[in-house]
Amino acid sequence: MRCSVKDVAEFVQARIIGDEKVVLTGISSIPAASPGDLVFVEDEKNLRLALESRASAVIAGVFAAGNKESKPLLLAAQPRLAFARAARLLIPKIARHAGIHASAIVHSSARLGHDIIVEERAVIGENAVIDRGTRVGVGTVIGADVSIGRDCELYPNVTVYPGVRLGNRVIVHSGAVLGSDGFGYVRDRGTGRYEKFPQVGRLEIEDDVEIGANTTVDRGALDVSRIGRGTKIDNLVHVGHNCQIGEDVVIAAQTGLSGSITIEKNVVLGGQVGIGEHARIEEGVMLGGQGGVLPHKVLRGKGIAFWGTPAKPVGEYLKQLAALARLAKKE
Amino acid sequence: MRCSVKDVAEFVQARIIGDEKVVLTGISSIPAASPGDLVFVEDEKNLRLALESRASAVIAGVFAAGNKESKPLLLAAQPRLAFARAARLLIPKIARHAGIHASAIVHSSARLGHDIIVEERAVIGENAVIDRGTRVGVGTVIGADVSIGRDCELYPNVTVYPGVRLGNRVIVHSGAVLGSDGFGYVRDRGTGRYEKFPQVGRLEIEDDVEIGANTTVDRGALDVSRIGRGTKIDNLVHVGHNCQIGEDVVIAAQTGLSGSITIEKNVVLGGQVGIGEHARIEEGVMLGGQGGVLPHKVLRGKGIAFWGTPAKPVGEYLKQLAALARLAKKE
Amino acid sequence: MRCSVKDVAEFVQARIIGDEKVVLTGISSIPAASPGDLVFVEDEKNLRLALESRASAVIAGVFAAGNKESKPLLLAAQPRLAFARAARLLIPKIARHAGIHASAIVHSSARLGHDIIVEERAVIGENAVIDRGTRVGVGTVIGADVSIGRDCELYPNVTVYPGVRLGNRVIVHSGAVLGSDGFGYVRDRGTGRYEKFPQVGRLEIEDDVEIGANTTVDRGALDVSRIGRGTKIDNLVHVGHNCQIGEDVVIAAQTGLSGSITIEKNVVLGGQVGIGEHARIEEGVMLGGQGGVLPHKVLRGKGIAFWGTPAKPVGEYLKQLAALARLAKKE
Repeated sequence: MRCSVKDVAEFVQARIIGDEKVVLTGISSIPAASPGDLVFVEDEKNLRLALESRASAVIAGVFAAGNKESKPLLLAAQPRLAFARAARLLIPKIARHAGIHASAIVHSSARLGHDIIVEERAVIGENAVIDRGTRVGVGTVIGADVSIGRDCELYPNVTVYPGVRLGNRVIVHSGAVLGSDGFGYVRDRGTGRYEKFPQVGRLEIEDDVEIGANTTVDRGALDVSRIGRGTKIDNLVHVGHNCQIGEDVVIAAQTGLSGSITIEKNVVLGGQVGIGEHARIEEGVMLGGQGGVLPHKVLRGKGIAFWGTPAKPVGEYLKQLAALARLAKKE
Repeated sequence: MRCSVKDVAEFVQARIIGDEKVVLTGISSIPAASPGDLVFVEDEKNLRLALESRASAVIAGVFAAGNKESKPLLLAAQPRLAFARAARLLIPKIARHAGIHASAIVHSSARLGHDIIVEERAVIGENAVIDRGTRVGVGTVIGADVSIGRDCELYPNVTVYPGVRLGNRVIVHSGAVLGSDGFGYVRDRGTGRYEKFPQVGRLEIEDDVEIGANTTVDRGALDVSRIGRGTKIDNLVHVGHNCQIGEDVVIAAQTGLSGSITIEKNVVLGGQVGIGEHARIEEGVMLGGQGGVLPHKVLRGKGIAFWGTPAKPVGEYLKQLAALARLAKKE
Repeated sequence: MRCSVKDVAEFVQARIIGDEKVVLTGISSIPAASPGDLVFVEDEKNLRLALESRASAVIAGVFAAGNKESKPLLLAAQPRLAFARAARLLIPKIARHAGIHASAIVHSSARLGHDIIVEERAVIGENAVIDRGTRVGVGTVIGADVSIGRDCELYPNVTVYPGVRLGNRVIVHSGAVLGSDGFGYVRDRGTGRYEKFPQVGRLEIEDDVEIGANTTVDRGALDVSRIGRGTKIDNLVHVGHNCQIGEDVVIAAQTGLSGSITIEKNVVLGGQVGIGEHARIEEGVMLGGQGGVLPHKVLRGKGIAFWGTPAKPVGEYLKQLAALARLAKKE
């Protein structure tokens, strides 16, 4: 895609310093930049590197406003954000022809909106409803009664169990499993055997959620599991039955939520975090990688970081680690 | 499915208090209950809530025997168990037509029992044997020489490597991989390169096992990996080569067993537990979430709970955590 | 496959003691050995067991040189390595007919070398290039512009995103996802919403790498993620965007690398290890199971073992654990 600096600056609402007619054709990191590339910087040191690079223009913070530079600058309050948006302009989505591939199997009762792409070997079940502009990747399986909103992207080899609901613009990466049975059994005290507790609830995933590769999200046992608008989930994450995840939550890779957990909005969970059933992580809490939360516990405090198992405020935990190091040294 | 309270009480062997003719049509949690729904309670507090709900009948423990209530009660020694069983009566399995979908590929040498469901795009390999009543989900791959018992449920996009054996009534959720190569290499001291150690053993999964979504279970290197009758494994669990898992074991999500581990019967492993090679977890041990067991270690003691890394009896571990907290506070 | 002891000894460069004409037909562990089987031992104790077993010949270390035994011995400097190599001779790969199954979908622009096996329902995208002798398993999806070297083995239900490059002799187990988007977002300070940072870099996997079942490896954000020659990765591992993994690295199951991490050659990572973004694990470091490394940290020292979170030299960590145990006991 060819755009002028002016086009890009207007799209991302940046202020131009320098030649607005320079042509941009792509994005890059600074070390890999070629002529035509747009790069971005967030500090003075990287600004030097960017200006010495082969890139054709630089998105920078307002800190760069005083400079008169060799390359055009696009000044933005959040340069990384402006760069992410510019990328949407400069790297248009791969054009794919809408339509249903001849090898896909779509149940006759399914209702598909216009401009849908159903790729090779995808299977869409009875009474499924998929809104316009959504892509169902190669080999992806959409169960009966599933509802999917518009402009979603389901990559190849995703599995969506019957009855799951996805909002609009949801992205689901390959290998993800949505709506599988939760892990619930009752032990017969007579025989000692475990019997399956019903896992017949639903799973609802709201708009603008992204779900990573090979992540699993269980349906509710009797009620609903929910993932709120704008929440981003990395690869290999486990979300157990009946979890309630709020809006704009970030969950890094390999984190596990057991059943009936509440994660309020704006929470950030690091990688490999483990949370016990019925715990509640309140609005805006941050929990460091490998941290663990016991069942039924509550973590509270906007912007407060917790760490360790059982998780405690990070300052307190670091004091414990330091005290232990000193103790071991003394002995 | 419409059943009277009497039908349900007979099916789950409960004693009725109240009107045995009330008609039930489904199950529910208490807050979501509608007329026709059956709910269950395990204590007095929830009994009050259940009786005030819109549910038509309540399964309760014998503690409720003295009451004369507005709704019929079904008294059972284990109300949750009775409810799980009632669900099987009230929510009949989705009727699916037995048969092999035209898009499935079944090798001419494979032997399939009657009442089998082979869904869209499933592939069944050479000499595979599948017993009656089993379902092979959309896109599931059954390797050569695999043997699967009766009334199993393999959800979509499961992969079963050649030669794996499954018993009866085994449930395997989407994305699970059964019988993959174990992680075994030998380093050539001359070249420094790793060479593959043969991974040619087998995997046997006994009756009534359930395996969660995206869980991986490796075949033996030279011998057999085994998962015992009635064992339940959650999502994203890793079971390494040559593991021997006993009967009625429970393994929560994201737990990992490296190679040649023995897990005896009735063990319960929390989520994100990690166990080193050749360790032995003896009968009835419980191991808390994120706990770690070193290679070659033995944990022993029916009903004894362990926690931490390296795992120790939970009381001892809690004392250590408390001592550390006090130490840090003093400084 | 039938081979004489002499054939095997020549293949693995071992010295024979005893009858070189004995016929071998397979490999086994010592307890399961049948006549015709070759077994191996690394110490005197197992040598006794092997000689008492039903095996027909034994690979042993040079320690066994003085013995005159009832069974032929094959003496090798690394008996386990010699056994692994003998297995390649005695267990020939399952003969599979080269060719493209009628149900596979290969884009007309894809270029395939000779002796390629494309199994049932595999899909190979536009402009993909696959070199000779490679197998693409049932249901595996190869995206557009993917390049795969020769003699690779892609098991069923693997997903390779567009543009990924694999070298020669790469093994990828079922459910693995290669080249998925990294986990990168920018928060708009105005709206509080996360927007996707471009994930348009590449993924390059060099020769002789093996990747376990359900492992996920993300593509670079702007640049390249790389996995070096000979590196072995177990099941359910997560490799984030922009990671640089050197040669002959070993990564056990469920370990997670967040973004932009450098792992130098000959590193060994235990299971469930977690490493924060931009950390560097230098040549030859070993990191014990469940260990954690903070973002931007460097671990250094060939052959030095680290453990704990945050990871420290294992001796130091064990001293801390011991000091804590003593402290708790005193109180």
